[in-house]
Amino acid sequence: MTTNGEATGQRMYRLIRKLYPICRSITGNGFRKSLRILQDRLELTMQEVPSGTKVFDWTVPKEWNIRDAYVQNARGERIIDFQRSNLHVVSYSIPIKRKIPLRELKEHLHTLPEHPDWIPYRTSYYTEDWGFCLPHRQFLDLDEGEYEVSIDASLEDGHLTYGEYYLPGESPHEVLISCHSCHPSLCNDNLSAMSAAVELAEYLSQSPRRFSYRFLFIPGTIGSITWLALNEATVPNIKHGLLLSCLGDAGSSTYKLSRRGDALIDRAAKNVLEHAGESFTILEFVPYGYDERQFCSPGFDLPLGCLMRTPNGKYPEYHSSADDLDLVQPDALADSFEKCVRIINVLEQDGYFINLNPKCEPQLGKRGIYRGLRGQGDLPNRELALLWVLNLSDGKHTLLDIAERAHMAFDTIHDAAQTLTKHDLLRRADQVEHG
Amino acid sequence: MTTNGEATGQRMYRLIRKLYPICRSITGNGFRKSLRILQDRLELTMQEVPSGTKVFDWTVPKEWNIRDAYVQNARGERIIDFQRSNLHVVSYSIPIKRKIPLRELKEHLHTLPEHPDWIPYRTSYYTEDWGFCLPHRQFLDLDEGEYEVSIDASLEDGHLTYGEYYLPGESPHEVLISCHSCHPSLCNDNLSAMSAAVELAEYLSQSPRRFSYRFLFIPGTIGSITWLALNEATVPNIKHGLLLSCLGDAGSSTYKLSRRGDALIDRAAKNVLEHAGESFTILEFVPYGYDERQFCSPGFDLPLGCLMRTPNGKYPEYHSSADDLDLVQPDALADSFEKCVRIINVLEQDGYFINLNPKCEPQLGKRGIYRGLRGQGDLPNRELALLWVLNLSDGKHTLLDIAERAHMAFDTIHDAAQTLTKHDLLRRADQVEHG
Amino acid sequence: MTTNGEATGQRMYRLIRKLYPICRSITGNGFRKSLRILQDRLELTMQEVPSGTKVFDWTVPKEWNIRDAYVQNARGERIIDFQRSNLHVVSYSIPIKRKIPLRELKEHLHTLPEHPDWIPYRTSYYTEDWGFCLPHRQFLDLDEGEYEVSIDASLEDGHLTYGEYYLPGESPHEVLISCHSCHPSLCNDNLSAMSAAVELAEYLSQSPRRFSYRFLFIPGTIGSITWLALNEATVPNIKHGLLLSCLGDAGSSTYKLSRRGDALIDRAAKNVLEHAGESFTILEFVPYGYDERQFCSPGFDLPLGCLMRTPNGKYPEYHSSADDLDLVQPDALADSFEKCVRIINVLEQDGYFINLNPKCEPQLGKRGIYRGLRGQGDLPNRELALLWVLNLSDGKHTLLDIAERAHMAFDTIHDAAQTLTKHDLLRRADQVEHG
Repeated sequence: MTTNGEATGQRMYRLIRKLYPICRSITGNGFRKSLRILQDRLELTMQEVPSGTKVFDWTVPKEWNIRDAYVQNARGERIIDFQRSNLHVVSYSIPIKRKIPLRELKEHLHTLPEHPDWIPYRTSYYTEDWGFCLPHRQFLDLDEGEYEVSIDASLEDGHLTYGEYYLPGESPHEVLISCHSCHPSLCNDNLSAMSAAVELAEYLSQSPRRFSYRFLFIPGTIGSITWLALNEATVPNIKHGLLLSCLGDAGSSTYKLSRRGDALIDRAAKNVLEHAGESFTILEFVPYGYDERQFCSPGFDLPLGCLMRTPNGKYPEYHSSADDLDLVQPDALADSFEKCVRIINVLEQDGYFINLNPKCEPQLGKRGIYRGLRGQGDLPNRELALLWVLNLSDGKHTLLDIAERAHMAFDTIHDAAQTLTKHDLLRRADQVEHG
Repeated sequence: MTTNGEATGQRMYRLIRKLYPICRSITGNGFRKSLRILQDRLELTMQEVPSGTKVFDWTVPKEWNIRDAYVQNARGERIIDFQRSNLHVVSYSIPIKRKIPLRELKEHLHTLPEHPDWIPYRTSYYTEDWGFCLPHRQFLDLDEGEYEVSIDASLEDGHLTYGEYYLPGESPHEVLISCHSCHPSLCNDNLSAMSAAVELAEYLSQSPRRFSYRFLFIPGTIGSITWLALNEATVPNIKHGLLLSCLGDAGSSTYKLSRRGDALIDRAAKNVLEHAGESFTILEFVPYGYDERQFCSPGFDLPLGCLMRTPNGKYPEYHSSADDLDLVQPDALADSFEKCVRIINVLEQDGYFINLNPKCEPQLGKRGIYRGLRGQGDLPNRELALLWVLNLSDGKHTLLDIAERAHMAFDTIHDAAQTLTKHDLLRRADQVEHG
Repeated sequence: MTTNGEATGQRMYRLIRKLYPICRSITGNGFRKSLRILQDRLELTMQEVPSGTKVFDWTVPKEWNIRDAYVQNARGERIIDFQRSNLHVVSYSIPIKRKIPLRELKEHLHTLPEHPDWIPYRTSYYTEDWGFCLPHRQFLDLDEGEYEVSIDASLEDGHLTYGEYYLPGESPHEVLISCHSCHPSLCNDNLSAMSAAVELAEYLSQSPRRFSYRFLFIPGTIGSITWLALNEATVPNIKHGLLLSCLGDAGSSTYKLSRRGDALIDRAAKNVLEHAGESFTILEFVPYGYDERQFCSPGFDLPLGCLMRTPNGKYPEYHSSADDLDLVQPDALADSFEKCVRIINVLEQDGYFINLNPKCEPQLGKRGIYRGLRGQGDLPNRELALLWVLNLSDGKHTLLDIAERAHMAFDTIHDAAQTLTKHDLLRRADQVEHG
């Protein structure tokens, strides 16, 4: 697997730039408009679920759409203006048009005192309320007096929308790739992951596939709950899952383990990060974070982990206007994409192999694939991998098992297996699929 | 569980002060007198086992009683006097009244050269011998000449005495609490544990109890062997056990694991110490120490661990006159008691629970028990505990399992389970009892 | 087990000195001559396997014998002379007699630039080639001009020779001890191990033996492959195996685990090294190194580890003329032998024992084998071992299990078991043999 990193990163970044200005929320036209942009690249189906639909313990909420919003001072100046940044309005704010004194206004204002120039991102999905977000510096300068607040929004019965893209493979067994797509103008969280998912779907559509792949572009929490509620019959097909988020910042890669902790996806991600030659972090599962909360709930317990760079809440720009087009960079995006591909390669390529010459080593030298040591120094990794694959291909170890025991990259072990197979020293076990 | 720490500590300390002057040994009137003092607080039964009774490989020894003892110099001065400290006489010394030269006397004197002002504590239970203990400084000053030694003691057929207190609970399954009660004027070892056991028995007698509780106040080694030999039929009821010793010194808490190492009592004690916010020590099981040697012998292998502060032999005052009323302090006693209570709470409250809404998270917000994150910062522990309990209450994890995986105090997890149960989101599994 | 270390070390060193001058290779008269020297000590059988014999994926090669070899300069001086060091000729060099210019000669010369005074050891077993090895310093001084190269060797159908010594024990189950014996004048690698194997065979021939022992003196790789191919029926009898190499240098002991990693031999070697009171190294299994590559191939997977001092390739003198009679020393040889004996003792003496007094401790004091603690300080290890053996001899723990849990030397635990058996407190379980 080689990917053209630079072109990939640029293409991902361009998609982010296109999606950035749109005001998304967990429902509404912004979400739809974003999916339509993705449809330029993928044959995405757009699903509409009516407000009021019962989904397990939850109910699909009313649809929220906003046209304009501002706060105007006594001199008629729009001092806070939705047109300048969609973060200025608390998401799901109810419509309002009133004059109120500063004191009352302040109860509806949100700032980040520790970052006085940034606008925070706030929501009020499940409590009817309204509010504005603004830089703390501006907040401190507000004059006494009356202000006109106007939120030209609607909160009415409508639909929850999500995007789904299914890519059939040899087997009906699926890999689920999901990313929350409900945040407004925030780049790392989570336009970065949306662009990675699109890139990955396009890439996989052009590759041979053992597994089928299902991509979800959904609103956080309510989206995964809705999807699971409406697609319970599909769930047993999901054998592996990867949640994507925050994939464009400059931090190193992070993988959060599934609830199971030792699922194949967990071990695949670990192997890829361990052998990428960079620092990385493996996080224990915690039932808090993104939609792994739902996918890994005990009634489903899907083997699904989460690939990130700096995790949510751990970078200062998180959920603020500073999560912008500068925070994400093409090279980081390309690197995250490459890691997704490598993880998926492990899923695709792992399996049991049988050493056809299990008694003693075969004579690799006469086949020209092994020079061994001449003089001192260590055996090249490539040759050591041949020995490991031969030694452990007894029908009880998968390639990933071997890679783990040999402390080697899966790719190196897989390449060795390919070489040995070509020389009739190894064959894939009949057992068709892992997991 | 809240305990009034200060009052508790004072009450424990007062009991120690009352027991301190008495000359106890593994048999005899001092032991009986001590139990009678405990009977002011508990309806303790006093068991009498005749000398000569065969108990497994051992025999109940003769009963030892001492009235007076001294060493008198040529000038008629009592230079060593049992009336001043019962530690002056080697426990189980045979009666003697003789004049002997210094040289011969010295063969029967015991001192602590490294602590020249302290009197050591020595015994000779199973070898007929006599001896005196004294400060090393005094030993060095002894003049040549003849000394009159007198030990007015009796070593005759009689009884071994022990105290037993049984507190029935919902289940006949028992928690065994045992402490050796045979040491003379030594406070930490083991009046501290005797007072903790009394306090605990009183406390539990006033609480609802899933388990039954059996408290033993026994002489070390021969007492546990005797009890086990005479109560073999009761042993299968013992599901958990806690040995108490050295609970009043200023050191941090120590728990010595049972022979099994992963018994519920071991895990309960670990969780309590790990989340007490103080330093602590977990010791591996070693078949040496106190009565765990007997309770954890392979023929019984009881799941019984040992709670201490500084372990036996690891504080300088151990087995000397410096283990006195200054070494133990009310606050340390109260803290040890509190830890016992917390450990027992885990035993009482642990169990399997079932998430009644296992598919995706229930919407906690609408029930008012969860605010989630507004802005940045970490989720409060209380709310994270709700998510952990929901996530792992699949019938395969007990609350303690969940606490361990969440790295949280059992209490926090138990509170969350209570909250969720109240909101009909959780129910206790039918499986009645753990262990 | 006590061995007279000094005499042993001297005897081992004398054998090395006798074998050192001989030019061994994987076949040929040097190998035979070496085995004949070993026959002065052991009733070794010498096996001859014809060239061309198919052994699994390999073929027994032609036999190589060399009589003389040199490089002569234009002035008729032998500047490289096989008679001075058999390392000067690449092992398995084909016969040649030619005059060639320096440029062409250089293509056949091997040196160690980083150690300019040493002659490297090189081989070309499976590719027909010829070459000379020399100090790099000499290589740099070679004048232009013509050189006469002469290798008076034969590479013809003949035999592969190996030595085998079988020592029957009570059980047909075998311990395999193997060492490669094909290197020319190299002392640590592997005359040291050959001398240890001889010493061990002699020692075991005079000891009672539960197991049978099979010693192999074989050429590396092709020797073990040949032996395994011709002795497949014997392989199931091999219950434990120990490969010996590099046992005479000044480094600390190293044990390389078997493929299984937790075989009895692995645990025995670990216990011995852990309690030898010196630094040591335990290496993970890697399917590279010596004949463990064959013995631990998946078709055999023998529980065989490798005892070394400094491992192959990890000391600078490795595979060079500096691996000479100065590199190995009698005291290191004796220490390695002692460790072999201790490891074998574990195999011989391990087993399940039954505590005949499992309920509470037996009263050891009355049997005079236990004093317990009088005053402060730790219990002597000897007495603690009695308690451990009693505590864990429940039919589920072997002596080695007990030693591991008690963090004690196997010998200490075994001695305790002997003492307890003598006092009728313990008996060996009926289960006859471990593994």
